[in-house]
Amino acid sequence: MKLSIPVRVYYQDTDAGGVVYHAQYLSFMERARSELLNKVGIDLARFTREHGVLFVVFQIAITYHQPARLNEQLTVSAEVAKMARASLVFRQRVERGAELLCEADVTLALVDRERMRPARMPEELSQALK
Amino acid sequence: MKLSIPVRVYYQDTDAGGVVYHAQYLSFMERARSELLNKVGIDLARFTREHGVLFVVFQIAITYHQPARLNEQLTVSAEVAKMARASLVFRQRVERGAELLCEADVTLALVDRERMRPARMPEELSQALK
Amino acid sequence: MKLSIPVRVYYQDTDAGGVVYHAQYLSFMERARSELLNKVGIDLARFTREHGVLFVVFQIAITYHQPARLNEQLTVSAEVAKMARASLVFRQRVERGAELLCEADVTLALVDRERMRPARMPEELSQALK
Amino acid sequence: MKLSIPVRVYYQDTDAGGVVYHAQYLSFMERARSELLNKVGIDLARFTREHGVLFVVFQIAITYHQPARLNEQLTVSAEVAKMARASLVFRQRVERGAELLCEADVTLALVDRERMRPARMPEELSQALK
Repeated sequence: MKLSIPVRVYYQDTDAGGVVYHAQYLSFMERARSELLNKVGIDLARFTREHGVLFVVFQIAITYHQPARLNEQLTVSAEVAKMARASLVFRQRVERGAELLCEADVTLALVDRERMRPARMPEELSQALK
Repeated sequence: MKLSIPVRVYYQDTDAGGVVYHAQYLSFMERARSELLNKVGIDLARFTREHGVLFVVFQIAITYHQPARLNEQLTVSAEVAKMARASLVFRQRVERGAELLCEADVTLALVDRERMRPARMPEELSQALK
Repeated sequence: MKLSIPVRVYYQDTDAGGVVYHAQYLSFMERARSELLNKVGIDLARFTREHGVLFVVFQIAITYHQPARLNEQLTVSAEVAKMARASLVFRQRVERGAELLCEADVTLALVDRERMRPARMPEELSQALK
Repeated sequence: MKLSIPVRVYYQDTDAGGVVYHAQYLSFMERARSELLNKVGIDLARFTREHGVLFVVFQIAITYHQPARLNEQLTVSAEVAKMARASLVFRQRVERGAELLCEADVTLALVDRERMRPARMPEELSQALK
């Protein structure tokens, strides 16, 4: 299960170094994860409401190779690399054409919305991501 | 009722133009409003929980005079300019020393959290801001 | 001259009130302005490099009518409402289907990059936006 | 060399999950790194101008333990964990009182501003951080 989305770089994404601000790549990656989930029928707002669980980012390991700049057109991808009982790992990449700018492994935990404790992955999700 | 807070400019606040990104001044202003409310005993999280009302930004008129730059130390102020039955106007300024960088009138409406409809200002708030 | 772009609402755009953070609409609007400029052949990075001028936001008057929520699909438009010697006014709207969520007049000034003083609008720009 | 700064959580830092947005912790950490550098006399704007080098984030490994919520008062620390010829590792923590919310190792590379290639650490910096 993999999805890519196009992302344009605007002033809002850049910093005074003239390049995309490092934390902003994580936001780009969230967009790709959300669109992947939408594509398999998981609307996050509805999902949380129905199952009472939230996705919470637990761990990120990210490496930056090349900077992106104003007005460039990037491709951001998300791929399910691993599914466990209460967590999910997405492998994510930001590319400019054939050039890899940035890559990360993002581990999400499923937590109960009220108690913020680990929650078992709802069947709907594991089926959808298969 | 008026409060000022110091705000340092970090990379996260700037854009590729080398100056603070225009929308970021609104975030600086939210910080000053929140600290003013904290100072008079209004913790926003508790306030919403207890009264079931949210502050929602309804209108902003903002003028930018001079840009702020990386690592500068700014002063951001919030002053209650007007209180009505279901709304509040804050007059806000961002300054660098004696120099005015940016000023805005920010109108907040009080809304019922569930229905997102106008709500009457709780007594606790009007008393606190007097 | 008018352009509309689709914008999806992600977690990064929302706040603990459960709706899009008010300053984030300004970022949505910047995206629409940039795409309008791209469409008429004005790449902002190149434009600044070649002409030595920056667009700087000078004034914004914004009104919020209805909140947007997680995962909604919005339409954000930018229209050139006025062109003067050294400034431009964009009329901008954020809509969800037929419903108007937010509207703003955004005035940009053209400034010399080095001195941050008003600069005359390059011919290339006034021609492109006609 | 270690520094801690207080950080208050505002609406701008939170998301619709009711907690601080995960990428925002990286911004909190940048603030602590910048203040540490300021404290030892390294003003980033001046430093880049004089030496022609930028700090670029190269790698981050971050783990999230507990979420922070609206209006909480946090402590964010930065400590120089390692210095090499062209890079620096900061160990960073976000705490709420005695409770660890989030921790990260952030590796910065020094790069030449024009060519965006690795640059040797200026003497001024290695001396200041000793």
